[in-house]
Amino acid sequence: MKAAIFAEPGRIVLESKPVPDVGPLDALIRVTTTTICGTDVHILKGEYPVRKGLTIGHEPVGIIEKLGFAVSGYEEGQRVIAGAITPSGHSYACLCGQPSQDGAGTRHGFKAMGGWKFGNTIDGCQAEFVLVPDAMANLSPVPAGLSDEQVLMCPDIMSTGFSGAESGGVRIGDTVAVFALGPIGLCAAAGARLMGASTIIGVDAIPERFAMARALGIDHTVDFQQGDPVEAIMALTDGRGVDVAIEALGTQATFEGALRVLRPGGTLSSLGVYSSDLRIPLDAFAAGLGDTRIVTTLCPGGKDRMRRLMDVVASGRVDLRPMVTHRFKLDEIEAAYELFSHQRDGVLKVAIAI
Amino acid sequence: MKAAIFAEPGRIVLESKPVPDVGPLDALIRVTTTTICGTDVHILKGEYPVRKGLTIGHEPVGIIEKLGFAVSGYEEGQRVIAGAITPSGHSYACLCGQPSQDGAGTRHGFKAMGGWKFGNTIDGCQAEFVLVPDAMANLSPVPAGLSDEQVLMCPDIMSTGFSGAESGGVRIGDTVAVFALGPIGLCAAAGARLMGASTIIGVDAIPERFAMARALGIDHTVDFQQGDPVEAIMALTDGRGVDVAIEALGTQATFEGALRVLRPGGTLSSLGVYSSDLRIPLDAFAAGLGDTRIVTTLCPGGKDRMRRLMDVVASGRVDLRPMVTHRFKLDEIEAAYELFSHQRDGVLKVAIAI
Amino acid sequence: MKAAIFAEPGRIVLESKPVPDVGPLDALIRVTTTTICGTDVHILKGEYPVRKGLTIGHEPVGIIEKLGFAVSGYEEGQRVIAGAITPSGHSYACLCGQPSQDGAGTRHGFKAMGGWKFGNTIDGCQAEFVLVPDAMANLSPVPAGLSDEQVLMCPDIMSTGFSGAESGGVRIGDTVAVFALGPIGLCAAAGARLMGASTIIGVDAIPERFAMARALGIDHTVDFQQGDPVEAIMALTDGRGVDVAIEALGTQATFEGALRVLRPGGTLSSLGVYSSDLRIPLDAFAAGLGDTRIVTTLCPGGKDRMRRLMDVVASGRVDLRPMVTHRFKLDEIEAAYELFSHQRDGVLKVAIAI
Amino acid sequence: MKAAIFAEPGRIVLESKPVPDVGPLDALIRVTTTTICGTDVHILKGEYPVRKGLTIGHEPVGIIEKLGFAVSGYEEGQRVIAGAITPSGHSYACLCGQPSQDGAGTRHGFKAMGGWKFGNTIDGCQAEFVLVPDAMANLSPVPAGLSDEQVLMCPDIMSTGFSGAESGGVRIGDTVAVFALGPIGLCAAAGARLMGASTIIGVDAIPERFAMARALGIDHTVDFQQGDPVEAIMALTDGRGVDVAIEALGTQATFEGALRVLRPGGTLSSLGVYSSDLRIPLDAFAAGLGDTRIVTTLCPGGKDRMRRLMDVVASGRVDLRPMVTHRFKLDEIEAAYELFSHQRDGVLKVAIAI
Repeated sequence: MKAAIFAEPGRIVLESKPVPDVGPLDALIRVTTTTICGTDVHILKGEYPVRKGLTIGHEPVGIIEKLGFAVSGYEEGQRVIAGAITPSGHSYACLCGQPSQDGAGTRHGFKAMGGWKFGNTIDGCQAEFVLVPDAMANLSPVPAGLSDEQVLMCPDIMSTGFSGAESGGVRIGDTVAVFALGPIGLCAAAGARLMGASTIIGVDAIPERFAMARALGIDHTVDFQQGDPVEAIMALTDGRGVDVAIEALGTQATFEGALRVLRPGGTLSSLGVYSSDLRIPLDAFAAGLGDTRIVTTLCPGGKDRMRRLMDVVASGRVDLRPMVTHRFKLDEIEAAYELFSHQRDGVLKVAIAI
Repeated sequence: MKAAIFAEPGRIVLESKPVPDVGPLDALIRVTTTTICGTDVHILKGEYPVRKGLTIGHEPVGIIEKLGFAVSGYEEGQRVIAGAITPSGHSYACLCGQPSQDGAGTRHGFKAMGGWKFGNTIDGCQAEFVLVPDAMANLSPVPAGLSDEQVLMCPDIMSTGFSGAESGGVRIGDTVAVFALGPIGLCAAAGARLMGASTIIGVDAIPERFAMARALGIDHTVDFQQGDPVEAIMALTDGRGVDVAIEALGTQATFEGALRVLRPGGTLSSLGVYSSDLRIPLDAFAAGLGDTRIVTTLCPGGKDRMRRLMDVVASGRVDLRPMVTHRFKLDEIEAAYELFSHQRDGVLKVAIAI
Repeated sequence: MKAAIFAEPGRIVLESKPVPDVGPLDALIRVTTTTICGTDVHILKGEYPVRKGLTIGHEPVGIIEKLGFAVSGYEEGQRVIAGAITPSGHSYACLCGQPSQDGAGTRHGFKAMGGWKFGNTIDGCQAEFVLVPDAMANLSPVPAGLSDEQVLMCPDIMSTGFSGAESGGVRIGDTVAVFALGPIGLCAAAGARLMGASTIIGVDAIPERFAMARALGIDHTVDFQQGDPVEAIMALTDGRGVDVAIEALGTQATFEGALRVLRPGGTLSSLGVYSSDLRIPLDAFAAGLGDTRIVTTLCPGGKDRMRRLMDVVASGRVDLRPMVTHRFKLDEIEAAYELFSHQRDGVLKVAIAI
Repeated sequence: MKAAIFAEPGRIVLESKPVPDVGPLDALIRVTTTTICGTDVHILKGEYPVRKGLTIGHEPVGIIEKLGFAVSGYEEGQRVIAGAITPSGHSYACLCGQPSQDGAGTRHGFKAMGGWKFGNTIDGCQAEFVLVPDAMANLSPVPAGLSDEQVLMCPDIMSTGFSGAESGGVRIGDTVAVFALGPIGLCAAAGARLMGASTIIGVDAIPERFAMARALGIDHTVDFQQGDPVEAIMALTDGRGVDVAIEALGTQATFEGALRVLRPGGTLSSLGVYSSDLRIPLDAFAAGLGDTRIVTTLCPGGKDRMRRLMDVVASGRVDLRPMVTHRFKLDEIEAAYELFSHQRDGVLKVAIAI
């Protein structure tokens, strides 16, 4: 089968690999559509290390090709998705309420960061086939009537983005700021809106993102190239600050901005994948006296999460289809990386048909 | 009346001041016992700025001398305490669930940090009399049978320490590490025990503190002068890490240690008052993918909090009297600062009788 | 001043009363618009006992006429609302997180049920003037640009209805059933939608209510006169049941229906005011083994709640103006009761201009 | 193998059965110690229906005899326990945060009540061998140094009892009442103490239970045969009522008593298995206006729960060994049922050695 693999920093290439064997708890999925994530670009650039030869990709839509023989409750031929994060269901992490951290390594190395497996510690889904571990916990049937592209954001972008609002504890009537309006930030804003925020402020500098943000119901956009976004947000909130600030990029500037716009007692909900140490300025942290919360969330996975997100899609509450701005075939994936990694042509998300 | 005031960095002195006038919502309390807090030492050293002439102190036990005429529900002569933090009850902060941030200033300055008023933005209680604002929200009658020293820790140390465990979300069967076993850390450990932690590990280097920790039911003590406390805690937990790590000092070392010992999905509950920027190491933060929570808590106040804490004291669940290691009169308060600020003679807390 | 008072069961009449004196913590409000609540009809019918001569009504929009002299932070002439429930801010109930129960009497009598005061234990606002107790905790300025009718639902209907969804813990992707689509139920459905429910099912039998429900974004309506609503909801959910069922009437039938449609582990959020004992059928309760939650909520009040709800109105997220189907003057209030208590002419809510 | 089976109402008898086959996800456990639960007595009496021939019992301590071949992470010969409730880990119920409801049937029948399987829908552990389903989610190794009897309460009594306090949301300084001090109620009281309740009041009438209650740290005991326990508790709390009332029997009297002693805004945490409809008196329910919560909890299971509870045992925080008042061999189990079902000889719990 064909698979996009990490060859070396700067090169993700399409190669031929054997179709994997199916273990007792696995399912083999014939991938029909997938996409490229910002994290994949970190891998491409060598900023996030994975082993050479690993198949990249963690957002699969496809059809069950073969089920492990201890797997029940599914049929071959069913159309399914699996989340980017694939909890086993039976680990201590899962059973104590931290399913996304299932399989997380020690805190002292980069192995199995969080509990992310697809395209990180096991082969991913930018390929003709992908092996889904712990299939019974992870395969979620796609409701009839939903297209591949309608559910393509569920495995990662939508789950991660929404979790930014959820972990932030957004309440009816909250004011929420979102720092960076890439796909994750846009979904975070959509999630904040879905949870009842009455004022949502998005920070970015790219016009296409602002347009998409408005389409998703963001109330105010702040262009950080036009002035200090912290001042702009404090002005928009009459000096009160925001209840929840969502960081959606993974840089010191967005992290610090999010911290500075919080009202006393507010929550910074961080979604970005960082690539260097962070600094917490003393004043922005109220010297530790501000009842400040800083929360990071790794994309929630598992079949119930996927079911819920597909329900949201089916309900029409949120329509993320406009986020797919470019379409490629698997054979063209290197070109897709080229476009997406350079953020050319107003790209938000690409769809890879297989 | 006599009052201990901040004169200039390095000098807190006893001076004479007029007894304050009583506004409609205030109560004038004749202080019978108070204490000195680590934060007062920050003020003494000029590390935490307050205005010159301010009366210091935020832990009052005393007797109602005079009630503002809009105050009902109390009688002059009643024995009461008030919390270190004095929420009004009627602010937006109070009514949205953040009473400790009532009166907090903007995020951009050091004015009214958190919502701390006594000995910070208004005169405090190291004096013969203290004016309690919003008396109906703050005065809590002392149950008969409890001595001044038994309830002396309730206004700050006990409330703050316990809140470290509460904000950390300690659950039955949790493993908890406490970084620094000063009075706050000891109370945090007592709080973790009170909430059902089955393993509590305390980090410090002072033998008197270890002895007090064991008396309060801490399971393991780690001496950071004998080796890396992170390694020691990872060994004690078989490499699993802790569910909740409580920071109780306010330094980079304790903050970072607390972060590094967390299991994936754990919570760092920070109580310290910091005096410089903090650094979050990338690996300790799992690059943002670890479902990490960092929570700061300012001492919960208000009369219901005080009532609950005095109930805990009355129940005998926790006995903090051994923490009072030295006793002074108000006239001797400069000597008390001398001893306490240099941590001489194994001092944990001092009682100031007035 | 003119005031609508409870004369005897069956009679609420307009009478003349002196304008009340203003205590130190009070504010006198010149009422400009108010409305009639279903609870007022219970009072009218004698089903909910209040003292004779009491002014009825708990949903005030108006202008500050006079402030008690211990009140600061407001100006006479300001346009404000106050919630139906008026927490003091300084009670034990408020300070332990139950502000709506401030002033609640013993559990053994009907005095001061919950913490509801206006038109229950103190004079209400179906009058030219109303005295707001603990004004600093309760007066919330109306943002410029919002009409009286736009904010008229905030004090009770909207706050109560939304709280049904909030106390139910509605999450993104939940399925929610609402039993009874009167004004409270409609607001509960709007609240569930605002919090991210992807499927909302409303039960009633009145066409005007179904129309309003659809306008507010309810997905499915179930007519209980056309068949068993429990069966209909189980069919709509493929036998799974709902995550949250909101009871919004106060009868055995709606309570029991809500219990029966819950999925295992679901939450029944009850808003109705009951007038007789309730029965929990053994099977619907899974004999106590179903991880069932039953939660009642009294309308959240306080100025921050009102501020948030008016923000929701201002944001355009929810538009409740179509719920005001009939308009009266204070002089016509007896006719308004006549219409509203008999649910004539498709009435949802009436506005009383004063 | 020998197994205690349900023959017909009134008869649980020891019979011979084949050792079960081991499916891919199962583990066969050689039981070394088990016990009899109050629910088993309901089965014995025919009050809780199960199929004839079913092996009874849901509290296994034993040794892994054989592992299903899709099971990894364990070794044959390991000493383990499994919870009374055995979540699969991979069901929708598990993945949406309701693991105890995994496998729960519809709400309309008594099949698979909650998600309880052992001795309810599959063969239980009052036998020489028991088959544990979804072994990887359920087997928890017993720490070295703990005896069978020390961990014998973890699978059900301790997990259920503690969950009564947990679901009640007991906080530091709470007052908690426990209605009925059988093994579940005693564990609920121990759980409330473990979570920081400062006043715990237990209601029963049996002297041996009161003695055990005092040993576990209950502050007050109320004998319901000496007077109305509601009045006694209101007197003990100065008319305030309790924050959390735990029902631990499953009768109208205990349910209603628990409801009546709640403070406004309090929580009734119900653990009992009921055998008839319940009535909620209007006044005790404050007509729906009391911010009342009623929560039922089915025994939390899964290996992480068991790990935590065994940690609590190992820490010495709670010692439940005195609750084992009588010991039997499997051959004597009919006598054990005879004693336990009639509550003879001050029995609290029996241990069955196998």
